Amino acid sequence: MSRQKKDIKRVVLAYSGGLDTSIILKWLQTTYGCEVVTFTADLGQGEELEPARAKAELLGVKPEHIFIEDLREEFVRDFVFPMFRANAQYEGLYLLGTSIARPLIAKKQIEIARKLGADAVCHGATGKGNDQVRFELGYYALEPDINVIAPWREWDLTSRTALIDFAEKNQIPIAKDKRGEAPFSVDANLLHTSSEGKVLEDPAQEVPDYVFSRTIDPEKAPDVPQYVTIDFAKGDAVAVDGVALTPGALLTKLNELGRAHGIGRLDLVENRYVGIKSRGMYETPGGAILLVAHRGIESVTLDRGAAHLKDEIMPKYAELIYNGFWFAPEREMLQALIDKSQELVTGRVRLKLYKGSAAVVGRESPYSLYDKELVTFEEGAVAYDHRDAEGFIKLNALRLRTLAKRNARGAKGA
Amino acid sequence: MSRQKKDIKRVVLAYSGGLDTSIILKWLQTTYGCEVVTFTADLGQGEELEPARAKAELLGVKPEHIFIEDLREEFVRDFVFPMFRANAQYEGLYLLGTSIARPLIAKKQIEIARKLGADAVCHGATGKGNDQVRFELGYYALEPDINVIAPWREWDLTSRTALIDFAEKNQIPIAKDKRGEAPFSVDANLLHTSSEGKVLEDPAQEVPDYVFSRTIDPEKAPDVPQYVTIDFAKGDAVAVDGVALTPGALLTKLNELGRAHGIGRLDLVENRYVGIKSRGMYETPGGAILLVAHRGIESVTLDRGAAHLKDEIMPKYAELIYNGFWFAPEREMLQALIDKSQELVTGRVRLKLYKGSAAVVGRESPYSLYDKELVTFEEGAVAYDHRDAEGFIKLNALRLRTLAKRNARGAKGA
Amino acid sequence: MSRQKKDIKRVVLAYSGGLDTSIILKWLQTTYGCEVVTFTADLGQGEELEPARAKAELLGVKPEHIFIEDLREEFVRDFVFPMFRANAQYEGLYLLGTSIARPLIAKKQIEIARKLGADAVCHGATGKGNDQVRFELGYYALEPDINVIAPWREWDLTSRTALIDFAEKNQIPIAKDKRGEAPFSVDANLLHTSSEGKVLEDPAQEVPDYVFSRTIDPEKAPDVPQYVTIDFAKGDAVAVDGVALTPGALLTKLNELGRAHGIGRLDLVENRYVGIKSRGMYETPGGAILLVAHRGIESVTLDRGAAHLKDEIMPKYAELIYNGFWFAPEREMLQALIDKSQELVTGRVRLKLYKGSAAVVGRESPYSLYDKELVTFEEGAVAYDHRDAEGFIKLNALRLRTLAKRNARGAKGA
Amino acid sequence: MSRQKKDIKRVVLAYSGGLDTSIILKWLQTTYGCEVVTFTADLGQGEELEPARAKAELLGVKPEHIFIEDLREEFVRDFVFPMFRANAQYEGLYLLGTSIARPLIAKKQIEIARKLGADAVCHGATGKGNDQVRFELGYYALEPDINVIAPWREWDLTSRTALIDFAEKNQIPIAKDKRGEAPFSVDANLLHTSSEGKVLEDPAQEVPDYVFSRTIDPEKAPDVPQYVTIDFAKGDAVAVDGVALTPGALLTKLNELGRAHGIGRLDLVENRYVGIKSRGMYETPGGAILLVAHRGIESVTLDRGAAHLKDEIMPKYAELIYNGFWFAPEREMLQALIDKSQELVTGRVRLKLYKGSAAVVGRESPYSLYDKELVTFEEGAVAYDHRDAEGFIKLNALRLRTLAKRNARGAKGA
Repeated sequence: MSRQKKDIKRVVLAYSGGLDTSIILKWLQTTYGCEVVTFTADLGQGEELEPARAKAELLGVKPEHIFIEDLREEFVRDFVFPMFRANAQYEGLYLLGTSIARPLIAKKQIEIARKLGADAVCHGATGKGNDQVRFELGYYALEPDINVIAPWREWDLTSRTALIDFAEKNQIPIAKDKRGEAPFSVDANLLHTSSEGKVLEDPAQEVPDYVFSRTIDPEKAPDVPQYVTIDFAKGDAVAVDGVALTPGALLTKLNELGRAHGIGRLDLVENRYVGIKSRGMYETPGGAILLVAHRGIESVTLDRGAAHLKDEIMPKYAELIYNGFWFAPEREMLQALIDKSQELVTGRVRLKLYKGSAAVVGRESPYSLYDKELVTFEEGAVAYDHRDAEGFIKLNALRLRTLAKRNARGAKGA
Repeated sequence: MSRQKKDIKRVVLAYSGGLDTSIILKWLQTTYGCEVVTFTADLGQGEELEPARAKAELLGVKPEHIFIEDLREEFVRDFVFPMFRANAQYEGLYLLGTSIARPLIAKKQIEIARKLGADAVCHGATGKGNDQVRFELGYYALEPDINVIAPWREWDLTSRTALIDFAEKNQIPIAKDKRGEAPFSVDANLLHTSSEGKVLEDPAQEVPDYVFSRTIDPEKAPDVPQYVTIDFAKGDAVAVDGVALTPGALLTKLNELGRAHGIGRLDLVENRYVGIKSRGMYETPGGAILLVAHRGIESVTLDRGAAHLKDEIMPKYAELIYNGFWFAPEREMLQALIDKSQELVTGRVRLKLYKGSAAVVGRESPYSLYDKELVTFEEGAVAYDHRDAEGFIKLNALRLRTLAKRNARGAKGA
Repeated sequence: MSRQKKDIKRVVLAYSGGLDTSIILKWLQTTYGCEVVTFTADLGQGEELEPARAKAELLGVKPEHIFIEDLREEFVRDFVFPMFRANAQYEGLYLLGTSIARPLIAKKQIEIARKLGADAVCHGATGKGNDQVRFELGYYALEPDINVIAPWREWDLTSRTALIDFAEKNQIPIAKDKRGEAPFSVDANLLHTSSEGKVLEDPAQEVPDYVFSRTIDPEKAPDVPQYVTIDFAKGDAVAVDGVALTPGALLTKLNELGRAHGIGRLDLVENRYVGIKSRGMYETPGGAILLVAHRGIESVTLDRGAAHLKDEIMPKYAELIYNGFWFAPEREMLQALIDKSQELVTGRVRLKLYKGSAAVVGRESPYSLYDKELVTFEEGAVAYDHRDAEGFIKLNALRLRTLAKRNARGAKGA
Repeated sequence: MSRQKKDIKRVVLAYSGGLDTSIILKWLQTTYGCEVVTFTADLGQGEELEPARAKAELLGVKPEHIFIEDLREEFVRDFVFPMFRANAQYEGLYLLGTSIARPLIAKKQIEIARKLGADAVCHGATGKGNDQVRFELGYYALEPDINVIAPWREWDLTSRTALIDFAEKNQIPIAKDKRGEAPFSVDANLLHTSSEGKVLEDPAQEVPDYVFSRTIDPEKAPDVPQYVTIDFAKGDAVAVDGVALTPGALLTKLNELGRAHGIGRLDLVENRYVGIKSRGMYETPGGAILLVAHRGIESVTLDRGAAHLKDEIMPKYAELIYNGFWFAPEREMLQALIDKSQELVTGRVRLKLYKGSAAVVGRESPYSLYDKELVTFEEGAVAYDHRDAEGFIKLNALRLRTLAKRNARGAKGA
């Protein structure tokens, strides 16, 4: 048991409607004796939300304290897209699908807490993971004096049996397949599905086939490649195959394409912010396509100086999001830098999707910086004078030559 | 015509034996009236080198001035492998196959120049590309007062016709297929083949099939995945499927595997150091596999602090190599940093190769930092105490909370 | 002689009215046979500008082609202040006084060129320095097809004698003290005076006293310290000792204070962009005070994350300005990042000026993040719980502990 | 009360001999019932250490469990000097005097713990500061399973009165001036003295004169400047005024010089790792001189690429030391990078010390990269050709020109 329980009156719980957060709901009522407000978000995880309402009511939550909201458009527009402008990949590979959803949920919980005068918020993330950090940094950054309840760090329900017992004692309905231990743990939203734990905990063993849920096995994907175009405006994707789509609809469309072709699977051992290495399996079908496409349109519309600066700051930007610092000033400063670069990242990318891969095969833009006249082997009427290269090299070499002479002579006079 | 011709006595030419460098050879003799020494390196480009000897002799080079050397092992061991320790990718994607070969050629030319007392070196790179910079920065860094001759920036043979005319006038044998303009330009070595120019110059158009030479079309690759293991020691690959191999042999082996499965194709619009955007197509079959595998073994053996620092400096490191600064002190400093991190990057990675993709499916190491006891959902007898997370989050949040209060209150007293 | 002279009709010359640019003016007329437009800027260099008008007229420039403009306010507001928001110091020390003035002059020349339909611009910077780069990158970035004339790289007036001869032959008035070689070369504007060359060329020798012009010798400065306050709003200084001042007037005021107390002298060996080390002496009286004060106000108003990010990108930002890339997108991106951080950098700093030093002795802000309640040794009713530190340390240590165990055990099973 | 007390047998305490650590000694004995081993280090804090022995004995520590060691040479050679090779300054200004001493103390405690089979270590740092983090990260990095006792986070002696009561009850001698609350808190070693807390807690108020102990008030320093030379070898200072000195003796000598001239005072509001802003006053007389001198010798011996890379990574390096990550792999990697750069940082710097300032007035080195022939205004027989500058600028401008044209035309066809 940790520190003394706080005196809480009303708590806003991030509620999925599932068994675990239902147990938390009841535990909050019984342990803290407080009123529970539930917040259930549709982030595109692919589950019906209305059952969550019924369940919350059943567990004694007042109808006016049950909040269910479709956040898919906001999620993609204000979180996923800004992040993709940066080509963010944590540890070179991970597309941050879970990380990017947490700040939005935290923000909504705080908004509801303010509206209802709640003095606490609560999440269902465990005590060894990144998500607890992401939720709580979000809460504190937005409402610095809010009370935070993290049941998994507080309660003594530390085994599956204890949880089931608690549920049974408290008349919480338990779906049959939830009685036993799940073979792995899942988080899903419109951007990705992550799986970790249990059968995945040996990083030497291949991920079993049944873990994948969002993508077809590349081996079972179509034998014929599919071509698709994505249009960008100011760094954000706006149309697929020429059809304009809202952010949420666009990512949904890319997810369908990615699923069909087995694109976006990632088996990764990563470094958690809490200091642990963990192994996860990610499926980010639409996101994987989007990253490739965004790099493609940037390649013709971004100046080298801009592109390289973006590449240099990307690891830090990705780390900030991974670690939960979405609302920190340094993330916002980096976002200002990134967004500044995207003003003319506009145009069309053509991609080939085939058995697990998305590859850029063409890019065009009214704002293209690619200049065939400049690059062609023939010297044309254009700006480029071959003789300039000599001076360019000579002055770039000058310091190296001075250095070589110094090194060759050793100490002067010696 | 640019500046006055220098007075050159003996020049070491990077000589491939092909038409273009044969023309250069003759042009050097006729223009500079100097003795030409040829240096032909086997970097794994896949061509016979002995014909180069015959051709050089035919063009009047003294037998003792013809140098042919097999550099494959040195190339991989001292250039490719150190670079792969950094997971270097220029502009996020390019594996630097051409860039990394130039410093070695430059180094060998300088060594020969010193041995023979030559006062100049010469390369066949054009005036708009990166390679002229890479060669010449290498020359100057190693021998600061050497004279550098860059025929493509000096001569007036600025069209295919002019080149062919010159060859014919000078009895240089011309292979039939070299008479006309090649449909694209190629560079190859053990790490990669690059193609650019001509048919590739419209970045909106897909690369035609006939451009690829090092990899099978993924669509024609085997329908069944192949599993392979790669063993690493101190950051370098040392064995494939349990068979220990020299660096050169290992990369050759990976190239075969990559070729068979259509792995390592990259269609890229990149930013040249000389300020031009160009479009290239790269095939790096073995390198693409190696990168994935190296990241895999690092994921279990590198500490987070080390891994993130490497990720942060990688773009700069890659840029230095791309721009030709292999012999610059800042590249050597970054290499010292990288190498320091690789001391225990040792272990085995298992990969799945399938239709264009190489994916890590397992990694194990005697030096693994992955600890199942730590990561498991159950709280065990181990170092991790759930309650620590609260303090960790609280102190990480403290500055954000202070900030939020400040922002909320606005100016004090206002 | 370099490449063929271009056919120029009308050129806008950055004209100081001094001997050198008067020679350039005449040389342009005689060599290019073109019409010369003069642009003379008051950047606070401390010289009368009207004589420049008379001299230009005397040299045959049409009155309507003589432009004289007071740029002091624009210079400080749009160039100096944005740069100081970044605490920019090149190579850790140099306040970039010359570097930051060049883009403004280039911009004005291009504006005049557009207005008058001029097809060229010209500056008086030499061929070994940074200023040629800064001017020309500015020109090209703003007007990509403009012709640039750099007389010092083109003409054969390569000795003092040749210059004086040319002046005499062309009836250019020569002040007595300009006949001989100046003992060092000077650049001045409202931010600084730089001196280099000749007597300063031995970096082992102390700068002679007569080189200093903008600051009193600290040994002769008042024996009693002076206290002064500077008020900041959104990162920019807005008042001195409570008196609101325009940017130009404020920097002038700080210059007076700095001069009186011998503040802002810097004797530096620096690395020029063209690859040469040079030794310069800078006097930046007001700027030195401003830097210290700005860091002071940031210390209480900037969050740690923001402050550290600024510190990390500062060297690159300073290098960009030093190298002449003010108008490059990467400088603008970094500026967006910096400016984003300055929104609440508002408050008052109190400084002590004494014999060459400016030291912060107090800072206060309505937006202060400093919280005495938090920092005090007593544990109060505040947010900070000592026990949080344990968890904070434990989780930060976790990866290091895992690492230590791994390193201690060596290879598993070994 | 925090978590349950651990079962401890023998603890190694960092013991100063002062009142606070004597109270801790007794508290450990009474609370944990364990054997206490004391470790007292001479880091140049300027106090007699033998009284610590007597006091420890008096408090019941066995003679063979009292360790007193003179670490001054090791401190400077292995910690201070490596750090100064990096020109490390936290938040642009702080020379890390306290931060750099903690890892050494931690290392020694662990060594003694191993030798004596102790199962715990203990320090006297408070629960709001950085030092607890630095000590404990050091402990854990070196001995991952060691028990750490941090009395200030555990006990209930949370007021001065409680501490004095405890001392009296336990026959701990109390010096008269220790009965009341000290007006500020001090840490000292050979590198610096820091003061914070109490009278310093209002950052708007000037530091009172009586706080300073290591430096003469600049106003009372000599009216005549003093010149001094410092010789460097491979980046470390090795002689003052031509006299070779050991690292410890050298820093002692520079401290004397700095003290006499009032050099190295710093009044700073800084960001602690635990998320709090605090205000401190630092006196680093010798260190301030050393930093200036080291930058001076680097200015002539370091290549630009090396120097700029060092500047770019410095903030991160300083932050790591400040935060306590001396033994982390990323600090060691950065050290490898830095040390690599220092191989020829050898030569002599001449400095002028005067009333609070140390300024470089001359530098010379057998490995100097400064080349008067290159930099001189006259074009000589040397490597530099003015015409090279044109090409250099043209190619650097090329991407900016392409960008300007793109921006000017807007969307193609529009």
